Amino acid sequence: MNQPLNKEERARLRRDQIITAARICFRNHGFHGAGMAEIAQMSALSVGQIYRYFTNKDAIIEEIVRRIVETKVNHMQFKKGDLQETAAMLSHRLMAGDPQEQEIDHALMLEVAAEATRNPTVARILREADDKLFGEAMDMLTGIRPDLNQAQLAVWVEFMAVMCEGTAFRRLNHQKANPSLLNTFYLALFTTHLPASEDS
Amino acid sequence: MNQPLNKEERARLRRDQIITAARICFRNHGFHGAGMAEIAQMSALSVGQIYRYFTNKDAIIEEIVRRIVETKVNHMQFKKGDLQETAAMLSHRLMAGDPQEQEIDHALMLEVAAEATRNPTVARILREADDKLFGEAMDMLTGIRPDLNQAQLAVWVEFMAVMCEGTAFRRLNHQKANPSLLNTFYLALFTTHLPASEDS
Repeated sequence: MNQPLNKEERARLRRDQIITAARICFRNHGFHGAGMAEIAQMSALSVGQIYRYFTNKDAIIEEIVRRIVETKVNHMQFKKGDLQETAAMLSHRLMAGDPQEQEIDHALMLEVAAEATRNPTVARILREADDKLFGEAMDMLTGIRPDLNQAQLAVWVEFMAVMCEGTAFRRLNHQKANPSLLNTFYLALFTTHLPASEDS
Repeated sequence: MNQPLNKEERARLRRDQIITAARICFRNHGFHGAGMAEIAQMSALSVGQIYRYFTNKDAIIEEIVRRIVETKVNHMQFKKGDLQETAAMLSHRLMAGDPQEQEIDHALMLEVAAEATRNPTVARILREADDKLFGEAMDMLTGIRPDLNQAQLAVWVEFMAVMCEGTAFRRLNHQKANPSLLNTFYLALFTTHLPASEDS
């Protein structure tokens, strides 16, 4: 028999339920198209219950972004700056993790970016997410390449962030370059400009 | 005294008026937040007059994107693949052209991308815009570097598109890398991997 849930566990479950529903609503109708009533209906809760866990729509967006960042950090730590895998994933426009979830994450981040251009709260959420991801990438690279200084590492992290976000952005278009040639090109680019570490 | 406008000139003027108003409405409230009534009010026309020039909101979006692509193509032809200027602009996250118009263009393209993930018409508009831009970049580079084959050029154009779009996307975040170090890095990256043409 399952133990009955304690208060904390029930709260966590409710929050998960709301986030899952909100992701789908925002994905299908955008932040403006999806209201609290729709999120409540989708999560089989009342609007009042939702407000007990999230003060407003921006708070739900913040939690969604926090979880997306968490996923990205986990994948980053898993890959540990593997240049070969990075080149392969970028050239084939693949994203790490479950494809369907990644597709939703990507659509939601586009929505967040569009909303950030006119909503200061969402702009702050986006900036803080990037600060967190950038910091995690710096920490990871510092561990791998203690011989490089922080300014050099920041240039490399910024370049990689541009490559990842530009590639994700371009997934909406047809790939007009040959992925295998692109892979060779990216790998040459990465290995020439970030020398391999001693032990690799 | 000004000549009275003929029918064609008046139609062009009306379309410009609608596009100018729609850009502001979409910029401020997103595609879903801005209705035809608001666009009509902002452009000092009736809703009926707007429908005479554009069958629906998607048609207005299409014309906005067409004009943004036109601007980008003009800047591309003006810069003629100048790697030094490209590195400088990317590292300082600058965009070509009038800063205020570029800022609106950028916000609108984010909105287009977010909408493209759920609206097939907007997805088609985005893809066609990219096909057009990619083709123009290929033509320009073929003129500059007739020694490279089309597959090599496509790899380079894709890489540059990733760099430009990733950088534009990241303008919403704080720049955490030193722009001058980033400039040096980008220039080295570009000049090492796309050899300079004979006459430059």
